[in-house]
Amino acid sequence: MSDFPKFVNIKEEAAREGFQIEKGPISTDQKVAFIDALSETGLKAIAVCSFVNPKVVPQMADADEICQRITRNPGVKYTGVWLNEKGLDRARATGVLDISGSITLTASEAFLKRNQNSSFEHNLAESARIVQNFVANKIPVNSVGVASAFGCNFEGDIPQERVLDLIDKAFVMARESGLEPQRIGLLDTMGWATPVAIRKMVGTIRNRYPDKTIGLHLHDTRGMGIANAYAGLEMGVSQFDACVGGLGGCPFAGNKGAAGNVCTEDLVFMLNEMGIETGIDLDKLIACAEMVEEIVGHPLPGQVKIGGNLDRLRERARASAQAAAAA
Amino acid sequence: MSDFPKFVNIKEEAAREGFQIEKGPISTDQKVAFIDALSETGLKAIAVCSFVNPKVVPQMADADEICQRITRNPGVKYTGVWLNEKGLDRARATGVLDISGSITLTASEAFLKRNQNSSFEHNLAESARIVQNFVANKIPVNSVGVASAFGCNFEGDIPQERVLDLIDKAFVMARESGLEPQRIGLLDTMGWATPVAIRKMVGTIRNRYPDKTIGLHLHDTRGMGIANAYAGLEMGVSQFDACVGGLGGCPFAGNKGAAGNVCTEDLVFMLNEMGIETGIDLDKLIACAEMVEEIVGHPLPGQVKIGGNLDRLRERARASAQAAAAA
Repeated sequence: MSDFPKFVNIKEEAAREGFQIEKGPISTDQKVAFIDALSETGLKAIAVCSFVNPKVVPQMADADEICQRITRNPGVKYTGVWLNEKGLDRARATGVLDISGSITLTASEAFLKRNQNSSFEHNLAESARIVQNFVANKIPVNSVGVASAFGCNFEGDIPQERVLDLIDKAFVMARESGLEPQRIGLLDTMGWATPVAIRKMVGTIRNRYPDKTIGLHLHDTRGMGIANAYAGLEMGVSQFDACVGGLGGCPFAGNKGAAGNVCTEDLVFMLNEMGIETGIDLDKLIACAEMVEEIVGHPLPGQVKIGGNLDRLRERARASAQAAAAA
Repeated sequence: MSDFPKFVNIKEEAAREGFQIEKGPISTDQKVAFIDALSETGLKAIAVCSFVNPKVVPQMADADEICQRITRNPGVKYTGVWLNEKGLDRARATGVLDISGSITLTASEAFLKRNQNSSFEHNLAESARIVQNFVANKIPVNSVGVASAFGCNFEGDIPQERVLDLIDKAFVMARESGLEPQRIGLLDTMGWATPVAIRKMVGTIRNRYPDKTIGLHLHDTRGMGIANAYAGLEMGVSQFDACVGGLGGCPFAGNKGAAGNVCTEDLVFMLNEMGIETGIDLDKLIACAEMVEEIVGHPLPGQVKIGGNLDRLRERARASAQAAAAA
């Protein structure tokens, strides 16, 4: 238990990964109002949109407009996602986003083949090209990452050695360009992780890269999201991606149940109760979860927005005890 | 991690605690078919009904009939709940239930007062009377327990010392009657527990009562159910109550969010992936979760019934890799 971090950084992904898979339509007004509400919760990083082909992902056609219209809170890093140089150019042109790169490799060749007609070799070559681009464009590369790190619906279990090998390769690639990313991100893209798998994987990576920060991107596909986050915290993980309400999912998972990123307010609730700082106001975050549930128009799986912040119940209990004592 | 149990016993509560709070109507036929399906999953204990006043809990008016009509699997212990001697007489009269008693005290006086117009003192006196009854009726007392052990919506946090004191008192009471219960049950009646609270509480109790089995009754009110179960497993907890689909809740919690016991199939999924035996067939359990969702007629929170058993995806991935190799 002594490895719990003192502070956890959460990157809120509902406006990007969440809205991206919603049928919608979600108006730009709604998106901007939602991102602005998130900006007032104390969150330090918010993913706001993807700069992708609007014909393929019409939900993100208004990415540029969103960036122009949000009210920037100077304490917040706003991020976007791009998949090619055109997207990167659009992201930079907004002038409001925190532009930084990552080297993210995919641990499942079956997934690469199926969704990108790619292979490990091609994935590596493509990543090397992207790194050259980052360098040429003077874009910092803060993170290396492995997608589908715990398992894949098309390939099955992913051996730990493969994940380690990909991390090693990503660092070699970065260092060849004089870069030294400080963060290692593990993505449980299809919700295969369980707490013991998290412990083993994070433990091994931490031993190999003791000076790096480890981040987890978790899905709740099989109900393990919060338990996996807890297992990560036990191993000192101090950075999580999450979505308010438990919005999100992977459109390419080939499984009806690829639902839901780990729920931000449930995670913050647990961190609060553990005495781990996040800088986030849980009540404001719950209000954002209620807001996003109204925006998407269907119930979302997060529980704390229904069960409530225990601090409010503690206050009520204290007031009630005082009233009884005074009576 | 070395404290993980090798085998976990799960008591399935959906037919009792689950159906009890559903608006219904749920027919006796549906209940019997559901219990019979549960009996074929490998579950070793199934709570089938409550023998309570049908005017107060009309959902359980058919308790006696259910017991007569279920197809008994000799590998399963069928249990019922009663709150007074009349209920106990009805339970015994069925001739099919495993009749055993427990001494369960409530850790929140505010809850006792509000819901039973009771007090700690009265709760103890009442329990002593019940123990006398058990002895007079030659009913084994296998368990002592504490309800609202982690917190109460009306009283706030529950000090650990109070829980320990109540457990001590329950054992004193049992031993005065020559009884030696082997199990200590902790009930997170209103979903206040978090993984660290579980670790602290279970750790302390285990130190005090190293020879007893510790059981957890968890709710998912704030999304912590599976994480709490995991924290319990880390401390060697080997017995859980759970509801397929995540059905259930506490009708007296005074909070709209008092929803859902920890979900049986999500728990069994995690245990399978950890290599901990349960004797339960996950696919059959998922079928029961789908069945109960249809019976109650609204979506239930369990995730594995949507996300799917990973063993099936592993098989599919293997078959697909073999087909590709053969092509």
